[in-house]
Amino acid sequence: MQLFFDPETVALIGASATPFRPGNQLSQNLEICFGERFYPVNPRTKKIGDRDSYPSILEVPASIDVAIIFIQASQVPKAVEQCADKGIKRVIIESGGFAEVGPEGKALHDRCLAVAREADMRLWGPNCMGCINVTKQKVLSFLIPMMWQGRFMPGRVSLVVQSGMLSAGFLASILYKRPFGLSKVASIGNKMDVDEVDLLEYLVSEHDTGVIAMYLESMGRGRRFLELARSTSKPIVVLKAGRTDFGREAANSHTAAMAQDDRVLDSALRQAGVIRVRGMTELLDVARSLGMVEHRGQGRARVAILSFSGGAGVVASDMLHDHGLELAKLRPETLARIKQVFPEWMEPANPVDVYPAIEKHGPDEPIRKSLEAVMEDPEVDAVFIHIFAAPVDVPLFNYGHMSRILEEYKKQMVVWIMGAGEGAEKMTRELEKRGIPVVDEIGKGVRIIAALAGRR
Amino acid sequence: MQLFFDPETVALIGASATPFRPGNQLSQNLEICFGERFYPVNPRTKKIGDRDSYPSILEVPASIDVAIIFIQASQVPKAVEQCADKGIKRVIIESGGFAEVGPEGKALHDRCLAVAREADMRLWGPNCMGCINVTKQKVLSFLIPMMWQGRFMPGRVSLVVQSGMLSAGFLASILYKRPFGLSKVASIGNKMDVDEVDLLEYLVSEHDTGVIAMYLESMGRGRRFLELARSTSKPIVVLKAGRTDFGREAANSHTAAMAQDDRVLDSALRQAGVIRVRGMTELLDVARSLGMVEHRGQGRARVAILSFSGGAGVVASDMLHDHGLELAKLRPETLARIKQVFPEWMEPANPVDVYPAIEKHGPDEPIRKSLEAVMEDPEVDAVFIHIFAAPVDVPLFNYGHMSRILEEYKKQMVVWIMGAGEGAEKMTRELEKRGIPVVDEIGKGVRIIAALAGRR
Repeated sequence: MQLFFDPETVALIGASATPFRPGNQLSQNLEICFGERFYPVNPRTKKIGDRDSYPSILEVPASIDVAIIFIQASQVPKAVEQCADKGIKRVIIESGGFAEVGPEGKALHDRCLAVAREADMRLWGPNCMGCINVTKQKVLSFLIPMMWQGRFMPGRVSLVVQSGMLSAGFLASILYKRPFGLSKVASIGNKMDVDEVDLLEYLVSEHDTGVIAMYLESMGRGRRFLELARSTSKPIVVLKAGRTDFGREAANSHTAAMAQDDRVLDSALRQAGVIRVRGMTELLDVARSLGMVEHRGQGRARVAILSFSGGAGVVASDMLHDHGLELAKLRPETLARIKQVFPEWMEPANPVDVYPAIEKHGPDEPIRKSLEAVMEDPEVDAVFIHIFAAPVDVPLFNYGHMSRILEEYKKQMVVWIMGAGEGAEKMTRELEKRGIPVVDEIGKGVRIIAALAGRR
Repeated sequence: MQLFFDPETVALIGASATPFRPGNQLSQNLEICFGERFYPVNPRTKKIGDRDSYPSILEVPASIDVAIIFIQASQVPKAVEQCADKGIKRVIIESGGFAEVGPEGKALHDRCLAVAREADMRLWGPNCMGCINVTKQKVLSFLIPMMWQGRFMPGRVSLVVQSGMLSAGFLASILYKRPFGLSKVASIGNKMDVDEVDLLEYLVSEHDTGVIAMYLESMGRGRRFLELARSTSKPIVVLKAGRTDFGREAANSHTAAMAQDDRVLDSALRQAGVIRVRGMTELLDVARSLGMVEHRGQGRARVAILSFSGGAGVVASDMLHDHGLELAKLRPETLARIKQVFPEWMEPANPVDVYPAIEKHGPDEPIRKSLEAVMEDPEVDAVFIHIFAAPVDVPLFNYGHMSRILEEYKKQMVVWIMGAGEGAEKMTRELEKRGIPVVDEIGKGVRIIAALAGRR
């Protein structure tokens, strides 16, 4: 797998000089990332950008680490054969029109595979967007160049996506909405040969990857997948689509995925410590938070809630229950410490409704003291803080103090900010810089706490 | 209820001249909304802003439609008595410290109520943020003035919130994140006298309200609530917190709410056609969408999906199943019409994966023709469109055409835009202007389609 992500020389069969065509975007990306070590192949043109175009892969005057094929499906088997003849060992087919379109496509699929097996070649795709090495800024994919240039932030999260467009969509969401650090991105499509298990094996051992997030429509080689999941301490987050009859029907026409009984799968994944999510935003939110925190839990999450709003505390409590988490039973000593900053008429409980205390003392003391008290309580594994951000920037947190107690107690902390504007944005930046995930919905916060809690 | 929302004269017992205190924010709001018809009461000061301050409500030289009380709980019963002596028939207690804090608070509660019953007075609160008439810009609440001034947009959605802070949080989310038109906003707190049933009765008959959204921690007078729900064609969306043991525990310490068996409640609400949601963002999203669309469904939702991404189609299909909706079985005629714009190798199905057709023809024709085909299909009740927005503004929709077929077929349409930036923002504005809700997550889109489907 390493060679797919880190080639020195690449060729593109189906390079295009026509602006806005995916084949042109691919050419531009390879030009940007590989310069003169990029060899475009297209018999109908002489130049692709600044590069000479070769009429066939066989005429490329260099040894090629990875060839990308992006031509009509019917022409692909021949191109794979030529790659084999040239001794290329890694080929990515990004074109669609294979097993997902019926028997004819399946025949093309089989021919490509037979050639690859014979030639000891690994085949990636088809019907995919290839791969991206964010760490080394190598983009073997037809993303629009302006979409990623200057925006990729190297980091700990690697992403494996079975669907083509979706991987572009995921990247757009990450890069334009809530940027976070990425390591490797893989779009695997129909999984003719290279599959999620190959990727998982690679990412589990790959140094830069700390968190593995996967969108899958089918899972093959399940035993090996689960073995790998159990073998690693890196968190693995999986969105397995095609959970239901409707989804399975849709998945079959999409990537020719034959889905399995979901309940069996669900319990196997759970036992192997895989974090399963149901939505795409959820996949990104959870992976992003896991990539941000220093310490994960030991499997149990007894949660203390500090809230500006009793109502939000109630909703969060319901949601803890939905996720199988616990509302922590605070110790009497903890409650007594919190009582010191509470107004006389009010008895502290979990959720800790800090707002009346803030009305009395201002925000610093009530938040700082309540937070310290619950973090120190051995009955608490994680703290969920709710804050209401005024449209203007009112400092609510003592960030230095939060960093210190996070380091001291190594518990999980997630903050939900209700409201928007400058104040909310600044708080979000400051908290996340310190490894404290910030969410804009209670449900997302509870989901993230569940994921940070670690294996059961 | 009308008089609470539309008084001519108001008094504030507990007016404050100290900046940043809630009593000062209340004073400022009443000054802005009522000018010289606002009478501040505070024995320790002579002036509140430009107004003379009265030492007691009894000395106010005018007949008062609504008095707001915002002083220490222990002083409230006396103030209520004085209001009764002055013949005031509508009183809002915004202070906390009553039944939610135990027996002493409960005694204060009982005294206030006894006075009110004797004097034929309606009591609102305590432990709440009062009410807001957005249509007439009358704010009887301690929101920060800069938060709402120039931001309230009159519209069809009315909001009833049992929690104080939460109503401010809801408003901040609405005004600062995704503004939508509001009619009345009510924060009812401990519901000493005025409760959600009073509000529901009022809002069901009130002309400006088209959609009723409620956050409740307890529901009393259930039979009457359900009767009212059944009697109206206005959609009612309810977030009932305290669904679970944890939530009930939290609700009890928050608004002294004694919660009931949730399963019984759930089925009763469902039978009365109430739309139940579980999260706060979900409440706002659903209410906002209901406030935007012209036509609701007849109870069934057979959904056609038009998608840029096969993967997103699979995830959406799973989620339709989760919500008890159906993936529409498109008629052969419909599939044949879509096939005309599809590449030769691809057979249309639902979800309709339009991207390959767009690669072939550009976006206009495939989207327009597929959309027309599914909207015309009698097997389809609603259409869920997925679009991937590039960071730049690429026109994907023919908005005029969308408006026309929406008007012609009166079916529901929801658009999910993946990606962000200028293109996404512009599309969102243009679509929502035409009554087509736009979401940024598939799950939200499916939730909204379920709500728009109407009663079962």
